[in-house]
Amino acid sequence: MLFFEGSEKKIEVVLQPGQPSLRQLEREFWQQIVAKANATILSSVHNEECDAYLLSESSLFVWEDRFLMLTCGTTTLVDAVVSFLERFCTDNLAMLSYQRKNEYQSHLQRSSFEEDVKALQQQVKGVGYQLGYLDGHHNYIYHLDRPYQPNENDATVELLMYHINGANAEYLRSDEQTLEGIRQRLNWEALLPGFQLDDFLFEPFGYSMNAIRGDRYATMHITPQENSSYVSFETNLEGEEASQVLNALLKTLQPDSYDLISFSQELHLDHQPGVICVDQAIQPLSCGYTLRFAHFLRPTCAVRSADLLTL
Amino acid sequence: MLFFEGSEKKIEVVLQPGQPSLRQLEREFWQQIVAKANATILSSVHNEECDAYLLSESSLFVWEDRFLMLTCGTTTLVDAVVSFLERFCTDNLAMLSYQRKNEYQSHLQRSSFEEDVKALQQQVKGVGYQLGYLDGHHNYIYHLDRPYQPNENDATVELLMYHINGANAEYLRSDEQTLEGIRQRLNWEALLPGFQLDDFLFEPFGYSMNAIRGDRYATMHITPQENSSYVSFETNLEGEEASQVLNALLKTLQPDSYDLISFSQELHLDHQPGVICVDQAIQPLSCGYTLRFAHFLRPTCAVRSADLLTL
Repeated sequence: MLFFEGSEKKIEVVLQPGQPSLRQLEREFWQQIVAKANATILSSVHNEECDAYLLSESSLFVWEDRFLMLTCGTTTLVDAVVSFLERFCTDNLAMLSYQRKNEYQSHLQRSSFEEDVKALQQQVKGVGYQLGYLDGHHNYIYHLDRPYQPNENDATVELLMYHINGANAEYLRSDEQTLEGIRQRLNWEALLPGFQLDDFLFEPFGYSMNAIRGDRYATMHITPQENSSYVSFETNLEGEEASQVLNALLKTLQPDSYDLISFSQELHLDHQPGVICVDQAIQPLSCGYTLRFAHFLRPTCAVRSADLLTL
Repeated sequence: MLFFEGSEKKIEVVLQPGQPSLRQLEREFWQQIVAKANATILSSVHNEECDAYLLSESSLFVWEDRFLMLTCGTTTLVDAVVSFLERFCTDNLAMLSYQRKNEYQSHLQRSSFEEDVKALQQQVKGVGYQLGYLDGHHNYIYHLDRPYQPNENDATVELLMYHINGANAEYLRSDEQTLEGIRQRLNWEALLPGFQLDDFLFEPFGYSMNAIRGDRYATMHITPQENSSYVSFETNLEGEEASQVLNALLKTLQPDSYDLISFSQELHLDHQPGVICVDQAIQPLSCGYTLRFAHFLRPTCAVRSADLLTL
């Protein structure tokens, strides 16, 4: 199976109050921004508070005063960010954070996090952190170093799952999968009640989903390839509502290893028996959020054989 | 502290019986080979069976019918191997294995394992394996696909230690360290009795050691930098004699995480309390060895803070 880098890059930008709405920008504007990252818009859904775009490699959410974009593969998200910033006076930014997850194969990326930061530093003065050990799972963040007071309900969580197992994982790698079949197995109807759904099944496999309800969003991206499977789920649902979805996904996808990254909320998951936390970090950020990172894994009981490489 | 990639690349070559001795090649020949990897010879020790060269970035051991070279940093070991093979008819090879450890920062390397293999495939037909998960610690091997019967006492072991802790780790990062002080703390006199030692202390820190006794060798390389510390120890000592050294090193350096990689021997270490095995793999190779890989770590009890990045 061909390797595909699922690990995401992520940008979140919030404007100062009193700026024109980001939703009034034409679709063409966002198409150009997305194109800078080497992605394209596949489809979109809209409600009274948010425009959600499903991209060829991930997602873009636009609210009146903020936007969030996630991209994976070998996309160049930083170029999209730089392009956005060239159109806006950086004095009008209330918050900017740029994150990168450790990649499976970082040498295949077109730039490193350090290089991305160098490009961002031309426009915004920020600080950077690494959460998690460099030889293990970790997350990088660079954010605008400017005081910001997030809204009370501004909390997000990312669940990043590696090496998924079981019947549902097999289904996601099989030829028989359908969009309807995936929706049912992931149980969106029960887990995301009242959400408007927009999803896409890639060929030969791979699944992306955006969902919105008012100002709440959820997004999932599945790279099912054996030996490098990766599933990310992110939402700004909070507390019990968020935990329920995450716990259900852990049961459905049975990852051998996963990371929980959250902004300004601490969630306790129902880990499957045998799963342990191997590394965790917490960092209050000068941009007003508290960032948490934890890496969980299920130690192997069995001795595996090696993976024969296709050379 | 400046980042330095400790993770090694390793080549081992054995000639068919009846070939001229590799030890008869001039020092200039090996200097040229080493230079191809972007390293230089610092010093050497010799006994009746082996020439051991300490390199600017690691080690080279030459016996009558075989050689072993380890290099770290951003060295290009594969270029040294290709250069060696250009001088020798590959029909005269009994065994060749090329290994690469997952790097802390693989995007800083001058080539990937896949690219290295492409270069080697021009000269030797081989097979490749990955032992260990791609998102965790892992080891790549490419070896000549030709039947080979290793000698009975041809067994090696590598102990690769990450994030060393305690007083000895602090000493290795301090300004007060001396060659004599390091030797005493590592206790070479007791652990490697009868071995001839050749070691080097780098500025501002970093330590390399070669040791030989008859046809037995041991080599250690220390990159003590906080947040990316790495210590490798490798030897062809066997059984109890090998275990004793490895157990002593674990006690002395207290790594948070370590890998045990062995060829044709299974060693059981005295792991410190709390240490668990998170991944292990075993693979019989067509070149006659059985390769074992295991990754151990001590799950963090405490929540750590993030590492502030120097940008």
